[in-house]
Amino acid sequence: MIITSFSNPKVKAIRKLEEKKARQATGLFFIEGLRTVGEAIQTGAPIEALVVAPELLVSEFGQSLLAHPSVRDVEQITVSGEIYQKIAHKQGPQGIGALVRQKWASLNSLPISPEGFWLVLDQIADPGNLGTIMRTADAVGCQGIILLGPSTDPHDPTAVKASMGSLFSLDLVAADWEAFNAWRVEHHITLVGTSDSAQTDYQAVAYQPPLALLMGSERHGLPEEMVNACDALVCIPMRGRADSLNLAVATAVVLYEIYNQSRKT
Amino acid sequence: MIITSFSNPKVKAIRKLEEKKARQATGLFFIEGLRTVGEAIQTGAPIEALVVAPELLVSEFGQSLLAHPSVRDVEQITVSGEIYQKIAHKQGPQGIGALVRQKWASLNSLPISPEGFWLVLDQIADPGNLGTIMRTADAVGCQGIILLGPSTDPHDPTAVKASMGSLFSLDLVAADWEAFNAWRVEHHITLVGTSDSAQTDYQAVAYQPPLALLMGSERHGLPEEMVNACDALVCIPMRGRADSLNLAVATAVVLYEIYNQSRKT
Repeated sequence: MIITSFSNPKVKAIRKLEEKKARQATGLFFIEGLRTVGEAIQTGAPIEALVVAPELLVSEFGQSLLAHPSVRDVEQITVSGEIYQKIAHKQGPQGIGALVRQKWASLNSLPISPEGFWLVLDQIADPGNLGTIMRTADAVGCQGIILLGPSTDPHDPTAVKASMGSLFSLDLVAADWEAFNAWRVEHHITLVGTSDSAQTDYQAVAYQPPLALLMGSERHGLPEEMVNACDALVCIPMRGRADSLNLAVATAVVLYEIYNQSRKT
Repeated sequence: MIITSFSNPKVKAIRKLEEKKARQATGLFFIEGLRTVGEAIQTGAPIEALVVAPELLVSEFGQSLLAHPSVRDVEQITVSGEIYQKIAHKQGPQGIGALVRQKWASLNSLPISPEGFWLVLDQIADPGNLGTIMRTADAVGCQGIILLGPSTDPHDPTAVKASMGSLFSLDLVAADWEAFNAWRVEHHITLVGTSDSAQTDYQAVAYQPPLALLMGSERHGLPEEMVNACDALVCIPMRGRADSLNLAVATAVVLYEIYNQSRKT
């Protein structure tokens, strides 16, 4: 049966997931598009249902995703193209989405290895920034992202879209500062923070794993308590009139320095 | 006289500038916020009018901007807090904006120096990316940004906001590929492009100014014609599942490599 009504309870439940409240209440989130659904399936994300608009799902890759062993027994919600377009919030959607269970890791469940490399974000506010950062973190081989304090939600549609499927390759942890710091001290994980007022050039440090890179929020940077706890504090030099960088850019610049050093050893 | 009506012609004209059509017809754009207006005033941007909501403009820095010599004789449009909030599209605005004349440079007006360093973007589509890129380009000392083909508008409100005032520190040029390439050949400017399929690591190249870094669009990368014209073609290595980076991130990673090399010579 193809759902053609916006008032269908399943359609309404999917659209509700645009709100954080509904995501928290259900533990689910909705993903959309060949690329993102493909990453979810291929990385074995806990998919609860596929949402398919047969008239839009014309690509061979899309068809092959439906036949993937890991979703063969998963419920398929079939909707009309019109309904799908409304759910996807975009022109020309590819006709495949999924309801996925959120997967949060705890600090103590994280595997610790000598090459461990985590990104820690304090109170990040912008879901687009978080999504872009997840994409970069995945590209340089971070194991996971640890979100400190009140943060934007990595399962927010804007974050999911910007991450291009990378959120399925990362361990995601929400923690408070004290618990995180105790965990990283216990496991001898070096903590490197960034600050505009730091004296050390980010290229002057030898980044030795296991390592956690700590970035402050868009508006406030790192609070003093965190600055004081860092093993090293680095700055990114600039020479124009600009005296700061976008958070996703600043994070990428330091992540690539860490990654580049590891490529050369 | 304080304007309190949304139907006031000046208020309507300001709001119209959210649309590209009105920006093209008038050659103006609207900027908003202490930081951005401050950069415009301090860099001598061609401000045609200041827009002030006295009840919101409470900071000392804001007051000092109104008294700046370069805007002493500029028209002040005074509006109520309610009107200003509507114009500014945000909660808690700081009560200062400006109508600014767009300043486009032509290729032939660009000063050429042995240290010249330009960023060239082909058909960039997302104004947020363009704004973030302007902020990064300013931070590393780029002289200007050359936009090839149909592009998003650097004066789009989203681009202006993301640039954090950096658009006033950069020469902005709109050009077609043939004119740009002829210009850069004539002035012996090395052209470096980026491509996923390039064989050369972006860190393996010695970036010698005068230099232009060429980045492709979000969706399509660089067309073959441009790839073939480049003096060097570089890739950014990745090791996760991600096989590409956000355009503003990729641009920042290469810009910082170029900047870092120049800092060490």
